[in-house]
This record gives sequence, structure tokens and C-alpha cells, in this order.
Amino acid sequence: MKLLEDRILRDGQVRPGQVLKVDSFLNHQLDVELLDRLGAEFYRLFREDRVTKILTIEASGIAVACLAARHFGVPVVFAKKAKSKNLDGDLYTAPVTSYTYGREYQITLAKKFLGQEDRVLLLDDFLANGKAMQGLLSVCHQAGCAVAGIGVCIEKGFQPGGKELRQAGYKLRSLATVEEMTEDSLTFRPQEE
Amino acid sequence: MKLLEDRILRDGQVRPGQVLKVDSFLNHQLDVELLDRLGAEFYRLFREDRVTKILTIEASGIAVACLAARHFGVPVVFAKKAKSKNLDGDLYTAPVTSYTYGREYQITLAKKFLGQEDRVLLLDDFLANGKAMQGLLSVCHQAGCAVAGIGVCIEKGFQPGGKELRQAGYKLRSLATVEEMTEDSLTFRPQEE
Repeated sequence: MKLLEDRILRDGQVRPGQVLKVDSFLNHQLDVELLDRLGAEFYRLFREDRVTKILTIEASGIAVACLAARHFGVPVVFAKKAKSKNLDGDLYTAPVTSYTYGREYQITLAKKFLGQEDRVLLLDDFLANGKAMQGLLSVCHQAGCAVAGIGVCIEKGFQPGGKELRQAGYKLRSLATVEEMTEDSLTFRPQEE
Repeated sequence: MKLLEDRILRDGQVRPGQVLKVDSFLNHQLDVELLDRLGAEFYRLFREDRVTKILTIEASGIAVACLAARHFGVPVVFAKKAKSKNLDGDLYTAPVTSYTYGREYQITLAKKFLGQEDRVLLLDDFLANGKAMQGLLSVCHQAGCAVAGIGVCIEKGFQPGGKELRQAGYKLRSLATVEEMTEDSLTFRPQEE
């Protein structure tokens, strides 16, 4: 999606350790008008897939998911990273190893919010090694719901998460896929339709 | 706001320890159409206050803030609860004691996203003891920005957070204020205009 690629080129910053900082518009400060247009693009890509619910993971995934959900007219449910006193009843849980936070954590989701009747679109801001997405897929498998598709704003194409999900047969669409990046240059892979 | 009060009466659940669970529409599963209407109501309440940015705290505040920000046409910035490798540069920090999570944590916000030129609307899903909101206000004071107002979806009127913020002179608007609650009944305070 050219709009997102142009914004990454303009405002993204490449940092040591394969970090792409997009915190001025995607995951710390949020350009809500941009997110709304990304949401419309996710709707164009998945409108035929009979999505009943959008699943994401806190925190920055929530913004992406909410702005997309308006276009689909479906609710969002987000997996939590920390155990809250307010989470009771039966829970799905799955372990996730986070590179960004340098630790493993459990994600949790109340069973009552995902079931066999659902066709779920999984959305997140980033896909790199795919650990968070694998955690969400584990939750979907536990719930017995159908995975209608997976959408991410930015895929790091040089890390294995996207390739593994495509090989597993999922309909994965990334609005911008970074093929290579250095502190001086950044190239994108042509987008799938 | 009657729409929200009715939804709380229909789907909210009162649990021991003064817990009001609204996880089916506000902070685990998200009814995005409802959130959009809450966002429109925040706009009605604060449209004259020259808001340049909406500030919130992860995680469920992000949903409320994003849907409201569409109506204002301003960006959102959210304070983070955990230290990420991707947070570098100068940071505002403030301590927050969470009842829900049973611990104290530091919230952090990159200095570049909040400054003296900003007039900030603080939004969150809940206001009870006001600890998270005090943390956000501390960040605003460090930034030297103006606080245009504070909006929350649900205020627990029997806890002191709201009263303290009003006494301190802030323009605080709560879309639903719970006056009293037991497992059998729940009463609301009439809304301010």
C-alpha cells in the first residue's frame, strides 16, 4: 500500500538490531486518519472472507484492529499480555516470546469471546518472527474458530514469520513488506493483491 | 449518556471487591460501534476546548482514544506500561499504582510526542481512584502542555478519583457515573452537561 510505504520512508527510522521505528504514527503516537485508511484497505482485502470478529493483541494492535473493525462492522477482541484481577472464568492461554520486550509472557483471552461459530481476522501492527501471531493462532485453535485471514500493517520480509504463515496456508496480507533495510536505505516487496 | 448506562445495565456485572466487569464491550471484547458513539459524545463535550492531541494509557484506553480521535481530527499518543527496547531517547515517566493488576509500575512516554504547544484531552475507559489519570497528568506537567480536559467512559463515583480531579479544577466529564453498586442493583449519577 503506497500510502503506508511512503509514510514509512518519510517518518520511519532504522535502528541497530533490525529495529524499524514507526512510533510517530503507528505504535506510540497514532495517526488515526492513516489508521482509518489502513482499516479500509484491510476491508478491501478481506471483505469476501465472512469475518465475524477481529482478534488482536494489546497494545498497539488495538488501534489497528479498532479502526479496521469500523469498516467490517464486527467487534474486536484483544488478547491480554498480563494477568488482570478482572480476568476470571475460563481462559485460553498461549506463550509468546517477545523480542521487543526481551521476555516470554502468557497471552490470555476469555473463552466466552471466541468460539466455534466465529470466523476470525487476526490483525497486528508488525509481523517479524511471528511469535505473537503464533500465540493468537494457538488461541484460535483452542477456540475451534475458523481463521478467515491474517493482516499486518508492516511485515519484515527478511524475518521468517510471514513465510511460515504462508506455507501453513493462511491468507496473509501485509500492507507494507520491508525486503531490506539499513540505516541509509529501505526497499519494499511488491504488494500481493 | 443513556446509551452507555443502558449497556452497563444490560451487560455489566458487579463482582466482589467493587469490580464492575464490562469486558464484553469496553475492555476485552470491544463494541467498536458503541465506542464510535462514545467518541462522538466526547467530541460534543470537548469540541470548544481546542484539543490538539488525545493522551491515553495502554491498553483499553487506546480503543476509546482512537475512536474519539477520528471525531476531533487529532492524533493519539498513549503512555506505555512496560519498558520496550523500541523506546529510546528522552522519556517522561511517572509511577502508577494499579488496583486491577495489584502492583506499581512506571508509565513512559517519549518526550518528542508531547510539548508546550499541545492542548491535551486525556481519555480512559475507567476512573476509580484516579491513579492512572494522575500519572498521565504528571506526564502533562512534565511536558508543560495545557490540559484541555479529561474524559472517561465510566466513573466509579463512590471512589475518590473524580472528586479530586474536579477539586483540582479540571474539566472532567464521565459518560456514565456509577453512584452505588451491589450484585443486585446499580444506580447512576445524573450526567453533567
